[in-house]
Amino acid sequence: MSIQGMSTQSISTQREANMIAAGDLVLLITLDSKEFLVTVKPEQVLHTHRGRFQHDSLVGQTFGATVNSELGHPALMLAPSLPDLMRHIRRGTQVIYAKDAAYLVHRLGLHAGSTVIEAGTGSGALTMALAWAVAPTGRVYTYEVRSDTFELARKNLARVGLLQHVDMHCASIDEGFAQTGVDALFLDVREPWRYLAQVHAALRPGGQFACLLPTTNQVTDLLRSLDQSPFAGVAVEELLLRRYKPVPDRLRPEDEMIGHTGYLLFARAISSSIDTQQWLSRDRKRYRARQRAAVAIKAEEKRRAQEIADGGPKYPRLPLPG
Amino acid sequence: MSIQGMSTQSISTQREANMIAAGDLVLLITLDSKEFLVTVKPEQVLHTHRGRFQHDSLVGQTFGATVNSELGHPALMLAPSLPDLMRHIRRGTQVIYAKDAAYLVHRLGLHAGSTVIEAGTGSGALTMALAWAVAPTGRVYTYEVRSDTFELARKNLARVGLLQHVDMHCASIDEGFAQTGVDALFLDVREPWRYLAQVHAALRPGGQFACLLPTTNQVTDLLRSLDQSPFAGVAVEELLLRRYKPVPDRLRPEDEMIGHTGYLLFARAISSSIDTQQWLSRDRKRYRARQRAAVAIKAEEKRRAQEIADGGPKYPRLPLPG
Amino acid sequence: MSIQGMSTQSISTQREANMIAAGDLVLLITLDSKEFLVTVKPEQVLHTHRGRFQHDSLVGQTFGATVNSELGHPALMLAPSLPDLMRHIRRGTQVIYAKDAAYLVHRLGLHAGSTVIEAGTGSGALTMALAWAVAPTGRVYTYEVRSDTFELARKNLARVGLLQHVDMHCASIDEGFAQTGVDALFLDVREPWRYLAQVHAALRPGGQFACLLPTTNQVTDLLRSLDQSPFAGVAVEELLLRRYKPVPDRLRPEDEMIGHTGYLLFARAISSSIDTQQWLSRDRKRYRARQRAAVAIKAEEKRRAQEIADGGPKYPRLPLPG
Amino acid sequence: MSIQGMSTQSISTQREANMIAAGDLVLLITLDSKEFLVTVKPEQVLHTHRGRFQHDSLVGQTFGATVNSELGHPALMLAPSLPDLMRHIRRGTQVIYAKDAAYLVHRLGLHAGSTVIEAGTGSGALTMALAWAVAPTGRVYTYEVRSDTFELARKNLARVGLLQHVDMHCASIDEGFAQTGVDALFLDVREPWRYLAQVHAALRPGGQFACLLPTTNQVTDLLRSLDQSPFAGVAVEELLLRRYKPVPDRLRPEDEMIGHTGYLLFARAISSSIDTQQWLSRDRKRYRARQRAAVAIKAEEKRRAQEIADGGPKYPRLPLPG
Repeated sequence: MSIQGMSTQSISTQREANMIAAGDLVLLITLDSKEFLVTVKPEQVLHTHRGRFQHDSLVGQTFGATVNSELGHPALMLAPSLPDLMRHIRRGTQVIYAKDAAYLVHRLGLHAGSTVIEAGTGSGALTMALAWAVAPTGRVYTYEVRSDTFELARKNLARVGLLQHVDMHCASIDEGFAQTGVDALFLDVREPWRYLAQVHAALRPGGQFACLLPTTNQVTDLLRSLDQSPFAGVAVEELLLRRYKPVPDRLRPEDEMIGHTGYLLFARAISSSIDTQQWLSRDRKRYRARQRAAVAIKAEEKRRAQEIADGGPKYPRLPLPG
Repeated sequence: MSIQGMSTQSISTQREANMIAAGDLVLLITLDSKEFLVTVKPEQVLHTHRGRFQHDSLVGQTFGATVNSELGHPALMLAPSLPDLMRHIRRGTQVIYAKDAAYLVHRLGLHAGSTVIEAGTGSGALTMALAWAVAPTGRVYTYEVRSDTFELARKNLARVGLLQHVDMHCASIDEGFAQTGVDALFLDVREPWRYLAQVHAALRPGGQFACLLPTTNQVTDLLRSLDQSPFAGVAVEELLLRRYKPVPDRLRPEDEMIGHTGYLLFARAISSSIDTQQWLSRDRKRYRARQRAAVAIKAEEKRRAQEIADGGPKYPRLPLPG
Repeated sequence: MSIQGMSTQSISTQREANMIAAGDLVLLITLDSKEFLVTVKPEQVLHTHRGRFQHDSLVGQTFGATVNSELGHPALMLAPSLPDLMRHIRRGTQVIYAKDAAYLVHRLGLHAGSTVIEAGTGSGALTMALAWAVAPTGRVYTYEVRSDTFELARKNLARVGLLQHVDMHCASIDEGFAQTGVDALFLDVREPWRYLAQVHAALRPGGQFACLLPTTNQVTDLLRSLDQSPFAGVAVEELLLRRYKPVPDRLRPEDEMIGHTGYLLFARAISSSIDTQQWLSRDRKRYRARQRAAVAIKAEEKRRAQEIADGGPKYPRLPLPG
Repeated sequence: MSIQGMSTQSISTQREANMIAAGDLVLLITLDSKEFLVTVKPEQVLHTHRGRFQHDSLVGQTFGATVNSELGHPALMLAPSLPDLMRHIRRGTQVIYAKDAAYLVHRLGLHAGSTVIEAGTGSGALTMALAWAVAPTGRVYTYEVRSDTFELARKNLARVGLLQHVDMHCASIDEGFAQTGVDALFLDVREPWRYLAQVHAALRPGGQFACLLPTTNQVTDLLRSLDQSPFAGVAVEELLLRRYKPVPDRLRPEDEMIGHTGYLLFARAISSSIDTQQWLSRDRKRYRARQRAAVAIKAEEKRRAQEIADGGPKYPRLPLPG
């Protein structure tokens, strides 16, 4: 089995020709935009609403051309790319969106040779994007506690030829990760703040940490824990994707869009010996300063009130804090 | 010169230790969040608003730790990642945003070993992201017609150790591209519709084509040309990034955000022998059908009016289309 | 029939008590958030999935309390407000969204006593918002060319007691409007640029003009026509509404949102004797200046090329524009 | 002093002519889009960067025409509308944005004759929008605890002729509001959850309550309190406004946009005798059900574990909840 330009042996082995062979992954698209992802196998048949396609009839054809079903309906044959693979995953859980997967890979700085930990694996959609980015010399270490979800992800990864770049663990992360010194680590779990020590132990110094969080409450809880942990460069971001109808004379956004997938949080592991309070974000420091000033003002007001009650001077001895 | 985990010789050569050496790129961050990207060179000095940092004082330190300036101010030392490199580029032109670069790399399906053409190069920010994605075995071919911009991009790429993965052309793309069979091609030019034949000639069948277009008029013009060209799977999308203030007790989006960078258009090259009118998007086909129905209705109305004027029957002979 | 605090006689007649009477509009909401808008009539019955509600059982009750169906299921009784009325309209066409209706009323500057023209009427949802804003002393003049849509709107407006503030015209606007000197005018038609002369003739000098336009092509066409017409202060804006799930411990945006309703365009009628080219927007003027510079540069390049071809001097006589 | 069509005596007194008179508010706009809001007074002078404008030179002119400064520069004369007035307010505090003011007025269902409470007054921008909506027969009751802000708002409202529709209170709302039975109530205070009893006491049954909240934490806190209070129909919403450059050949959104103003929360006061837990939103009920199921599952797991430890049967006696 092989993706074009990314054989199951090595990502660097380029295919010489653009010709479809047994074992290839092929994306078939019919005229009504229905898509089918198939691994070409001798004597197998793909059944569709437009008729049957003999796998053997694809062999020897070129990508980018069309093939007809037994009923005479054409289908376009394309070499599937990462977004195609992710779109055709078998889903057991909420699947990550392309916009978020793309941005995570970018912000985690992944490239061929990187090492990255992921938990939980879910259906394996993000695992695909991570494997795609670090192959052929890097490695993805992924953790999933539910065995049925783990099996689903394993099958999904095997089907698209990316399993070889992934170490899969069917295990809880309560006890931490088996790896250390990894370049990046991504958590998609309900209570990520419980694992910051484990995360820090697994990352190389300066390594990137990222989370996907559906609710604002989770963001708040994680930010609170990060305040007390050796991480810097904390950022919270969110992406919105707007699709347009590709009609030249009536260009306009689609009527509906995805309103929310999750908040993305990023932070960098720093040396544990550093006073992390110094390395808070500017907004965070400003807020802490305001809070301290508020406390000082309250105390001064109380002191003055007492002073007046005691018949003392009505004006403050000390200048108010900033 | 080397990026951590991505030496200038080969991206796959992992650094053994986490220790800073001469030739390394280091990102220094002071307590007030000011950043400095330096290539460590013996006996050189970095001058900052927090005092001077001797390059030699960094050598032998570990990434993720801090170093003090001669005035005693600490700075965090980090191994720069792709977003850091792009953020610290010297700008001569509008620079691509991280959200768009990340999504383009994802949608173009780039991985180690891919080949991709880009025009124009601009300051080289997207070129970095493309090189990062296809290194060490792939190749970026980039075209820039302005010689001053070309030089700026060359320096930017050399500085961050990614130039070795890029073939730079200081040339117009009017005559087409020197490469054929590339996996993907990205255009950031004023009138991309003028180059569709050249784009198709350079791409492998099924190869991904993408454009960044600032205005809706450009999107309309490009969609019109694509209607007549051997491309399928046309999509127009747009990303909005929203940043949040990372303050746990006062979580809220930032007051200002980038309102627009550009519309992203994607399409896939298909065999020239295919009737492309068949492979238009669903919205596009629906619109064409509506237009044809409107023309037919107009004609029927005219016929009826004439019939009535001629004293004929007042009811239509034929059912109306649509 | 009367809306609370807005009788069908006069908007200024406040109801003394909060008690439901025959003729009142009442919004009934069952425990599963289903809503029913009813006009209370003696001996009538409302049939719901939670059982039957006798209208007479509502009379004498207070708004804000609950009433039980014959099956014992409670329903909350509320005095419907403008958004409730608009949500419960009978729809024949695309209905305007609350966010757009609210912003239009605001930007048109409507208040009690204002006069405003609308075309087309559609189902009458915006007509309701306009009538609500200008009642009791103002007036809405609305035009609809399709007689079935016109009838639907008339019934919708009558049902909610707002028809008395509206003059309805079942007519095309090709021949213009019957009114002059109105404060504001709103067009929701396919080709608004065809009616700018009629719009200007109907508005008082300085009066506000607004359009809702689904596509970017329409915006472009209307902007082009406005360039040649006595209007100033042209603005194009768009509103996005994001709803959140109101769950305190899991606060997050809803998964889906409306991705597009329409672009809103605003402009102010100015005296026809004014040179409108002077009063273009800053962006528009800047663009025109750039275009003129480009033309001048092209001409100068041509002149120079000719001069050189003629054996003349190689350097320009004149400084380049811009 | 009078706004066109809304004299300081009564909003319903329409101006007969379109002619500028002493006492009128006039919006002057110069060719470079600079705006000046003036109340025309005999013998006064407006000094601008384009020269001086004698107020007397405006008298007798028509709105929508231009007038020249003493240096010969033209300025357009317009009758200011609500958005103009709000834009030209003197600011002491954060001012509400047009998009939010418009939507609040709409969702609160305000019309001529409505009564509405607001706290705090701030600079009075929203107060203007509220007064504009309820004049001439309705009333705005506004509360502001800071005396300097109170004075600023009073001047702003007086300047634009809307003060007569407003009752201003320079007072804390800790003790509640002086009014009862009002149609709507808006809070823009730091801790609105402290005032729900006071809010409920002031609103008529079914009356609309709204808040503007900058942070997600405030939304969470307010939602928690509303859970325990006699309110229904709770909704949290947010508006984003996107402006476009009005250039026909280069239509595109502006580069920068406002990323956040505040979350809008809406709820309706219902009878105190109602069991409010019944009237929670669907999402809220679903979440509560999930929480209860989770607690029951936990308890069942514990019971089973104990049972096994005690050597009892390994299978549950009872079906699991949910």
